[in-house]
This record gives sequence, C-alpha cells and structure tokens, in this order.
Amino acid sequence: MAAVAPEHAIGVFDSGVGGLTVLKALLRELPGENFIYLGDTARLPYGTKSPTTVVRYALAAAEALMALRLKCLVIACNTASAVALAQVRARVVSVPVIGVIEPGAEAACASSSSGHIAVIGTEGTIRGGAYQEAIRRRRPQAQVAAAAAPLFVALAEEDLCEGPIAAAVAHHYLDPLLAGAPRTDTLVLGCTHFPMLRRAIEQAVGPGLAIVDSAQTTAGAVRCTLAQAGILAPAGMPHGRLRLLATDAPQRFAQIGARFLERRIAAEDVEAIDL
Amino acid sequence: MAAVAPEHAIGVFDSGVGGLTVLKALLRELPGENFIYLGDTARLPYGTKSPTTVVRYALAAAEALMALRLKCLVIACNTASAVALAQVRARVVSVPVIGVIEPGAEAACASSSSGHIAVIGTEGTIRGGAYQEAIRRRRPQAQVAAAAAPLFVALAEEDLCEGPIAAAVAHHYLDPLLAGAPRTDTLVLGCTHFPMLRRAIEQAVGPGLAIVDSAQTTAGAVRCTLAQAGILAPAGMPHGRLRLLATDAPQRFAQIGARFLERRIAAEDVEAIDL
Repeated sequence: MAAVAPEHAIGVFDSGVGGLTVLKALLRELPGENFIYLGDTARLPYGTKSPTTVVRYALAAAEALMALRLKCLVIACNTASAVALAQVRARVVSVPVIGVIEPGAEAACASSSSGHIAVIGTEGTIRGGAYQEAIRRRRPQAQVAAAAAPLFVALAEEDLCEGPIAAAVAHHYLDPLLAGAPRTDTLVLGCTHFPMLRRAIEQAVGPGLAIVDSAQTTAGAVRCTLAQAGILAPAGMPHGRLRLLATDAPQRFAQIGARFLERRIAAEDVEAIDL
Repeated sequence: MAAVAPEHAIGVFDSGVGGLTVLKALLRELPGENFIYLGDTARLPYGTKSPTTVVRYALAAAEALMALRLKCLVIACNTASAVALAQVRARVVSVPVIGVIEPGAEAACASSSSGHIAVIGTEGTIRGGAYQEAIRRRRPQAQVAAAAAPLFVALAEEDLCEGPIAAAVAHHYLDPLLAGAPRTDTLVLGCTHFPMLRRAIEQAVGPGLAIVDSAQTTAGAVRCTLAQAGILAPAGMPHGRLRLLATDAPQRFAQIGARFLERRIAAEDVEAIDL
C-alpha cells in the first residue's frame, strides 16, 4: 500500500457535471483540502446504461484518478455508487472509497419520522434498488417508494430548473409517487443533478415533506473517514487547490458546471483527459 | 476494394434508438434488402459531445459494421452525419456512405417557397452548422434560423411525446425561434428523435409551416445510390432480414426502440456488441 499523506488530494468522480453539487459541499466542509474532480463527459450519462457498462466506466475513471496520488476517492454519482462501489473498492485498495448512496440513506433515515421514505433517481439507480436496500439496512421497518425521474437530468443541464416546464415535470414524477405512498415524510434526491431543481420539487410536493440529498452527508462522511485515518489537511491551512478534469468538451463542462458548482469556471481551467 | 453484391446488407448506425426512425423509412422503401442496425447505446448521446469524440465513436461504429459485409453504410444520426461524415467516408472507401444531413437539406429546399427555413437539432448538430451550410449550398439566398432543442431527445426516449410537458417544451424552443424568423415556412427536424414529437411540434407551430425530416429522403437517397451502383436487391424478393445490434442494454434498446420502429422488438432479438 502506497504511503498516503494529508497533502494528497481527494479525488471525486462523476459521469459529468452532476457530481459538482457534491464537490460544492466538500469544498465548504473541507476548505483546506486539495481536490481533483473528474467528469466522464465523453461517456455520460451513466443513468441509462447497464450495470456492466457503468462498472467498466467507473473503474476506468477510478484508475485515472488513482494515478494522481489521492488520499481518498469519492464516487459523486448515484448511479456509479449504486452499481459499482464494490468493484471500485476491490480495485482501489490503498485509499478509502466513499459513495453517495450510504450517506444519502443515512440522511433520509435521520430525517424521517414516519419511516415512509420516497426516493427519486436515474433509471440505473432506481432499478438497482441500492437506496431501498441501504435505507432498510438502517431501518428495517422503513417503507420505501422509488421512481426514476430521468427528465430532471436534462432540465438541470439545460438550466430549466424553474418555470412551467420544471413544474410540470416535477408533478409528472412526484404526484403518482406520493399518491401511492401517502405517509411519506422524506424525499431523497437520489441523483446529483436533482438538487438543482430543489425549488421546483419543493413546490410540487408542498411543505409537509423534508427533502434530503447526499451532498452534505457525503462531505461529512469524507471528513470522518479522513479524520479516523489521521490524514485530514491540518487546520488553519490556506484554501486547497482544485483541479478539474473532463473526458470531453471542456467548454461545455465549464459552462454548465459553473451553475452546479456556483463558482466561475473558465474553459481553460478544465483539463481534457482521455480514459 | 472487396466485391460488393446485391445480397449484402445495408448497415445503419446511430448513437442509440433515434436512427430507428430512419430505418423504418428504409424498410418501407426497400423491403427486399437485408439491414444491420447498430445503436451505440454504451456511448449515447452523441449530441452533447465534442466533434473529436463523435468522430472517434462514429469511426468505431462504422468499422464494426463494415466487418459484417455491407454494400452501403447509412449514418442515421444527425450529429454524426454533421461532424463525422467526411472522416467515415475517408475510412470506408469500399461502399457508399450516406448521411442524413444532405437528404434533410434537400427535403427542406424542396418544401420551402419563401426560402426561410428553420432547423432544430441537438447541440452538436446545430453548433457545427452543417444543416445551415447544406441548405445554402442548394439555395444560396436561403435564410436559415437554427436552434438546439435537446430536451426533445429525453422526451422521446421517455415516451412523453404528447401532453402538457411536450407542448410546453415545444413552445419553449419554437416560439423564440420563429419569432426571430417570421417568414419561415419550413421546419427541419434535424434529429432522428424529433419525428416522435411531430404532433406536439405541429401544434406548437400551427398549420402554416411544413415540417420535414430526413428519414424519407435518406431512404430515397439510398435507393438511388444502390440503383446507380447496380446493387439493389432484385425486385420481387421476399422481405429481407433485419439484425439489430446494440453496444449496451439490449433490453432498454428493445423496449424504447419498438416505439421508434413501430414494430415489436424482443430483447433477445438485440445482439450485444462491444466496440
């Protein structure tokens, strides 16, 4: 096992820009750390692809990042976390690998009083049932209703996060889901794109429901893991460095990613990388 | 150059299921031919990716199909036709290669009286300007307005082709496009997914506009090309064979593809192929 040091970077990968909502939480939680974010934009989306293919893509992304001396690897993509976490952990044995499903399930179980939880995500995430399992592992009596909501991804990428189209799509997915699970008190945004549509989703479900995503709890899990291993960046360090890598179309990544990360990204700040 | 015979198949490729709208027109136009359709579902969509990446994917798909003894190769994807036709033709020299942009431009120029034509397509197709050029090459005085309409792809794949969401999205794209080009009399559906939304698009633009897509004219171009080369399947032949190949998720391909092709596709009829 290679020596891992506090100054090594935290690697974060996603199929594209969605994971930047997780990176945003990580930057807030751990401002002294160095981060390297990889968006696999040449092969996005993962959400409609088969588990076999997503595993292959996730392993390639993980290996590319591991070549850059990491101290921790975050799979900031629900689909890849749902279907490829075990395989990535088996391949990447020298540093901790953290997905977003377990932290998302943790957030849901902490939020729910009734034990009735709804989850929305991509086709791949929902079909695999990873959220449903992770919630029931923590809370065996939980009732979990789940639905794929793939159009939210396209709406978020196209900056149609509010307005009549976003509202109509939110009702299209959420009305039948909640009608079938009326005691639901917590809705999990099980895709890193979905926090971009949080307001439209909140308006569609009304005030009685707590909405949770895994970004903040994932950032907390990363802090915990690094602290336990004794490899947190020392307190009082200046802000860490951030490297952004994309497998295709750095300009599009910069343009759409800036909205997700809520900070300016210049196209020349995004390094092209081939997997 | 390998010998090409009438019984060889016509190869058709697309990033996924969209090209099945072109295959449907080809099956109607040339029922005696054998067809092999390849959907590159492991790497779809092409429409948001860079020209370099689309060229790489298109060459891989073309080479995989060429290994199966073709007499003609059809690029049934507007994005790949727009950015990779020349490169595929340079690589595949033994048989004719036909894209969908030129036939679509042909259909538009034949339809338009005013010479004011609007085109909608994916980001990659519109950004590259291939339709705009192909139309102006035929009709130098033509005024071409163009807009990317990427959400239509997601709507078509999710079978949300009619109803309030499709209507709202159609108005979202088409109202500003046509407000800026009021003399438009012809709208080109420059993406093979868009014919699935034809009714919603027609309702959004009203009765004064002709809507054309490249499926039928592409099928006509293929017939012409094969006839000139003397390699049409002999008249009076029984129906040809159809092979369907997909690089990922054959079941999803079968399920969504059946709507695009308007015929039943069983998951076991779709062969998985690795590129």
